[in-house]
Amino acid sequence: MSEVSPAQTTIGFIGLGVMGRSMASHLLAAGYSLRVYTRTQTKAAPLLEAGAIWCESPAALAPECDVIISIVGFPHDVEEVYLGENGLIAHAKRGSTLIDMTTSSPLLAERIGREARENGLAFLDAPVSGGDIGAREARLAIMAGGSEEAFERVRPIFEIMGKNINRLGPIGAGQHTKMANQIAVAGTMLGTCEALAYAKFAGLDPEQVLQSIGGGAAASWSLNNLGPRIIQEDYAPGFFVKHFIKDMSLAIEAARETGCATPALDLALAMYQQLAAEGHEDAGTQVLARLYETGRKQDL
Amino acid sequence: MSEVSPAQTTIGFIGLGVMGRSMASHLLAAGYSLRVYTRTQTKAAPLLEAGAIWCESPAALAPECDVIISIVGFPHDVEEVYLGENGLIAHAKRGSTLIDMTTSSPLLAERIGREARENGLAFLDAPVSGGDIGAREARLAIMAGGSEEAFERVRPIFEIMGKNINRLGPIGAGQHTKMANQIAVAGTMLGTCEALAYAKFAGLDPEQVLQSIGGGAAASWSLNNLGPRIIQEDYAPGFFVKHFIKDMSLAIEAARETGCATPALDLALAMYQQLAAEGHEDAGTQVLARLYETGRKQDL
Repeated sequence: MSEVSPAQTTIGFIGLGVMGRSMASHLLAAGYSLRVYTRTQTKAAPLLEAGAIWCESPAALAPECDVIISIVGFPHDVEEVYLGENGLIAHAKRGSTLIDMTTSSPLLAERIGREARENGLAFLDAPVSGGDIGAREARLAIMAGGSEEAFERVRPIFEIMGKNINRLGPIGAGQHTKMANQIAVAGTMLGTCEALAYAKFAGLDPEQVLQSIGGGAAASWSLNNLGPRIIQEDYAPGFFVKHFIKDMSLAIEAARETGCATPALDLALAMYQQLAAEGHEDAGTQVLARLYETGRKQDL
Repeated sequence: MSEVSPAQTTIGFIGLGVMGRSMASHLLAAGYSLRVYTRTQTKAAPLLEAGAIWCESPAALAPECDVIISIVGFPHDVEEVYLGENGLIAHAKRGSTLIDMTTSSPLLAERIGREARENGLAFLDAPVSGGDIGAREARLAIMAGGSEEAFERVRPIFEIMGKNINRLGPIGAGQHTKMANQIAVAGTMLGTCEALAYAKFAGLDPEQVLQSIGGGAAASWSLNNLGPRIIQEDYAPGFFVKHFIKDMSLAIEAARETGCATPALDLALAMYQQLAAEGHEDAGTQVLARLYETGRKQDL
């Protein structure tokens, strides 16, 4: 089967949150016919004005589309969108390609993959990294799992939304790669926040410390991008604590399945759960630095 | 007092290990008169051939020098070099400047600073990062603590050995900054090794995973520089496990003094101590990845 193209392909898009709405708008701008569904219809308004067609449910959207992309909240949302009574598996037309870009469970991806195959559908799991800015600027990293044929067929769609696009293996491999990404992030966040906390306790000027250590072996995206915000005590969300907790919980669950120990991830999750319990779940992940404040050390 | 210069300044250099010998050779090449001492005299041979003068002890070296640099192994070596019977404090000439570039205890630096001041000597603590390659290529990051006057006086010497040169505050601030550096490194090493271990357990191709996640929010010097070595199971030392254990132990001790909790550092140290106990203390720090191998998860 040949590659998709705007002239011949209708895309369905499910989930118009902060990520999905940017991604969908790029597809529309590239000339694709777009049918959209999201739980809160008002979020679709700008896309509908730009020419997208509203559908009342995944079931209503599915029969009209050749490719259907979802990017929703949690695995149980993914499960409902794909496997529910009004879900895509039951209502998509044979031969169409379903792509879940939610960060979700690798095991759930495998289960959806099996159901899809039994119904004559192709499925790819393709979570992303790069956040709202990456989505807006069409610079997402896309980590896909699924058949090479399906991946190559929809590659033009991925290229409209992202830059670093890789197929990592069979269905589930995209989610597993995203889990590995979040495990690396968890460790660097611990290192970043702990190093800057120590600098503060030691009476150093943290900006000078960042200048001194940010270019060497201690360097990380977290240190150099979130470090300055931590120093300013700017905890506005780039990436929400609550979403990181979700991702780390999925990673721990997946790691347990594979038999891989994750002591650093376990520690990071426990610390973020403490932050969430204290009401910081809507802050950015750099709020971890607050857990190190004076007088709280006994809690860590 | 004005800046040092090759025509007017004799430098003493104590400690010609893998770092010190490169640093000393740059000073010699820049035209400085150099007197050297190191515990194992054979290590001095190439420098002596190039024109450096051998001294039998710190006490023998000290009276002839305007600036004395040390970079030795452990805090107890620093203590002996500075505060011992044949040490620099007792034998350096008044007005000279002593610079300890060993990664050592901030508290010891403060103590040496007090002794130096009482004896009419200037002292700077100025540990480095960048490893043997940074030393060889004169690209070390230098993190200095001490008076601005002393720092500015010897700046030309720092500029011969390093690139990112900062004074972070009073005596001890250099060591504190190096501790912050190592705390950040500890976290990123945990994230790097744990993420790549997970990738392997999940059946992914770790090289593809690195390609996919190495450019985004998970990026770190560790992931991108040590990741490829971990994948090749190449555990040759860039930075030795035993030296990282020393640094982390110093950081924990210093953190306890300041009241800063260091849960990630504590975890990293425990894991590296386990590696050392298993005979890996002369491996590179990337050997941490081995702790995640199959069947060992119960130990973590």
